Amino acid sequence: MTNNNHLVIMAGGVGSRFWPMSSAEKPKQFLDVMGCGKTLIQMTLERFSGIVPMENVWVVTSTEYKELVAEQLPDIPQANILLEPCRRNTAPCVCYVSWKIKKRNPKANIVVTPADHLVTRVDDFQQSINEALEFTAETDSIVTLGIKPSRPDTGYGYIEADLSYSSSRKKNIFRVDSFKEKPSLNVAEEYVRQGNFLWNAGIFIWSVSTVVNAFRVYAPEISRAFESLLPIYDTAEEQAAIDRLYNECQSISVDYAIMEKADDIFVYPVDFGWSDLGTWNSLRLQAEKDRYGNACIGPNIRTFETYNSIIHTTGEREVVVQGLDGYIVAERDGVLMVCKLSEEQRIKLFHD
Amino acid sequence: MTNNNHLVIMAGGVGSRFWPMSSAEKPKQFLDVMGCGKTLIQMTLERFSGIVPMENVWVVTSTEYKELVAEQLPDIPQANILLEPCRRNTAPCVCYVSWKIKKRNPKANIVVTPADHLVTRVDDFQQSINEALEFTAETDSIVTLGIKPSRPDTGYGYIEADLSYSSSRKKNIFRVDSFKEKPSLNVAEEYVRQGNFLWNAGIFIWSVSTVVNAFRVYAPEISRAFESLLPIYDTAEEQAAIDRLYNECQSISVDYAIMEKADDIFVYPVDFGWSDLGTWNSLRLQAEKDRYGNACIGPNIRTFETYNSIIHTTGEREVVVQGLDGYIVAERDGVLMVCKLSEEQRIKLFHD
Repeated sequence: MTNNNHLVIMAGGVGSRFWPMSSAEKPKQFLDVMGCGKTLIQMTLERFSGIVPMENVWVVTSTEYKELVAEQLPDIPQANILLEPCRRNTAPCVCYVSWKIKKRNPKANIVVTPADHLVTRVDDFQQSINEALEFTAETDSIVTLGIKPSRPDTGYGYIEADLSYSSSRKKNIFRVDSFKEKPSLNVAEEYVRQGNFLWNAGIFIWSVSTVVNAFRVYAPEISRAFESLLPIYDTAEEQAAIDRLYNECQSISVDYAIMEKADDIFVYPVDFGWSDLGTWNSLRLQAEKDRYGNACIGPNIRTFETYNSIIHTTGEREVVVQGLDGYIVAERDGVLMVCKLSEEQRIKLFHD
Repeated sequence: MTNNNHLVIMAGGVGSRFWPMSSAEKPKQFLDVMGCGKTLIQMTLERFSGIVPMENVWVVTSTEYKELVAEQLPDIPQANILLEPCRRNTAPCVCYVSWKIKKRNPKANIVVTPADHLVTRVDDFQQSINEALEFTAETDSIVTLGIKPSRPDTGYGYIEADLSYSSSRKKNIFRVDSFKEKPSLNVAEEYVRQGNFLWNAGIFIWSVSTVVNAFRVYAPEISRAFESLLPIYDTAEEQAAIDRLYNECQSISVDYAIMEKADDIFVYPVDFGWSDLGTWNSLRLQAEKDRYGNACIGPNIRTFETYNSIIHTTGEREVVVQGLDGYIVAERDGVLMVCKLSEEQRIKLFHD
C-alpha cells in the first residue's frame, strides 16, 4: 500500500429528494438505505479498503454532521473530519482539503468521491481506482471516472470522450472533449448511440500538486483564500478561520471551477455497477427486488397485488401494502409518504 | 328522569375489519376513530345523557377490556362492568346482564346498544329512544330500531315491517314481518323499492320482564343457566361462576335466539344519521371530507391528487399522500397498511 494515497469523501449533501427517509438532520449518506446493515458512507469508505490507509482518509461535511461522521467512521482520525459551516458547493470543499493534504504530504495522490453513491461490483471498482491512481502518480493529469451508460438517463451529466486520443501511458484513459449538462431524452439517446459519452460520476483522481495548481490557475480567488490559511491549519484557530472564509466564499462546483476550464483532463471509462442513488427509482433498481419488481426495505413488509414499487420503512413494526403499481411508500421517524414514482421529482415540494 | 331506565352497552367486539387502526388489544369501540377527541364507546354513552342515569349504565365486554372500559367511562360504577371470559355472541351477553338488572330492579326498562356505532343527529336519536322506552314501559313488546335505508346496502341485515299493522299506542311503531340476512344487491334494491324494509341496527328496547320471559320461552337453556346464578350475582363468586358458565355456553346471537322466534316484535323506523362504521368506506362516508372525497383523520395529513380515500393515522407526526384514488392508508402503533377500499373485505386476512 502506497502511503501517498489519500481519499476525500464529500459528505455534505442534504438528500432532500429522499424525504422522508432522508432529512436535513440525517441525510442519505448516513442511512442504511439498502437495508444491508451499513450506511452509504460506511460502504463508501469500505470500498477503498486496501487502497487508502485510514490515516489518509478525509471527510468534508457540514458542521452539524460531525458526530454522525465520527460515529459511523470511528476508524478515521478526528482531525481528518473537515467541517463546513455553510454550503458552498464542491469547489471550496475540494480546495480546502487539498491544501490540508498538501501540508501533510506534498506527494499525496488523491481520490475524491461523493459519500452517497452505490457500487455493486467492488472488485472492479478497486481495480479502476488503482489504475487511475497509478496514472495520476506518474502524470499531472486530472482524471475523472466516466460510467459507461446502460440507458439514456436524463438525470446525469455526461462526459464526451475523444476515443481517438488515449493517454500514452494508459490506453484505456482518454482525453475529455467536453462536459455536458443533464440532457433531454433525445439528446441522451444520441449520446448513448454515439458511444463516446459517459456518465459523470463526480469521482476525481489527481495528485495534490495537480489539483492545487489547477485551483491556482482556474479559481485563483478560492485558491488564495485557502492557501492563506496554511499557517493555521492544524491549530486551534483553524475552525474559526474556516468559518469566516466560508461565509465569504464563492459557491461553485468543482466541475465549473476546474474541470470545464482545465486542459489535460482525462476520463477513464469504467463499469462497476454504479448508481448515484439520486432518485427513489434508482434505489429501487439497485435494491433486491421480488418477482413483481418491488423493493421492500424494512423489518416486516408484505405486499399483495403490488408491482414496481419501493417500500422503505424504519419506524414501522409491520407494513401491508395492497394494490399499488409504481409507488413509493416511505416512512421514517413518524413521517410517512405515499407517492407515485413518476412524481418523485415533486417530493422536495412536499416538505417545505 | 325515570330511574327505571337502564342502558346496556355491548362492547366485546374485536374490530378486525379496521386493522391496523383497530386491533384485538384495542378494538374500534375504544378508539377515537372520527378524530373528534372521543372514542366510540364514549360517544355511545354520551348519547344517552339525560335518558339513563350513570348508575343504570351497564357495559358487557371481554375480560381483557376491563381497564379500557373503566378508563374511558370513569363515571359508571365498576360493578356494572360485566366481563365475558370468551366470545359467545350476543345472546349470553344479553341474558346475563338482563338477570343482573332484574335482580337490581324488576321494573327496569332497557336499551341494548352496540358500543361502536355512530349517530350524527343525537337529538333525533334521543327522541326516538325516549319514545321507544315509553312504549316498552307500557307494553310487553320487544322493540328494535329500524334505520330507514338511504341506499341498497348489502352489508346490513334488513327488518321487514308490516306497515299496515302499527301499535295502538304508538302509530309509528310497527309489527315485524321477518328478519332478513344481508341480501344480494338485487334483493337490497328490491327492499329499498318496497319501502317497508329497514336496516337492523342491533339496538333493542324492552322491559327487563319482557326480555327475561323471552329468554325463558325461546332460549330456555341459556335462561336457566344465568337464572341459576341469581344468588351469587354481586358476590365474590360471581366472576368464577360466570367464567365456568361461559365456557360451556352456546354461542348464538340474540337475533337468532329471540328476535326471529318471538311474537310481538315491533320495529320503530328511525332516521338519525346512523352508521355501524362496519367498513373503512362507511367511516369515510361519515367523517368530514375534503372537496375531493378524502377523509383525513390524524395530526398532520396533506394530500396531492388524491381522491375518495381515507387516511387514518395515530402514530405518525406527518403524512403526505400523492396520487391515490379510492384507498385506505391506515397506521397505528407502528403498523401501516395501504389498501384499496374495494379490497377492504380482505383486511382480516392481512393480519393473520
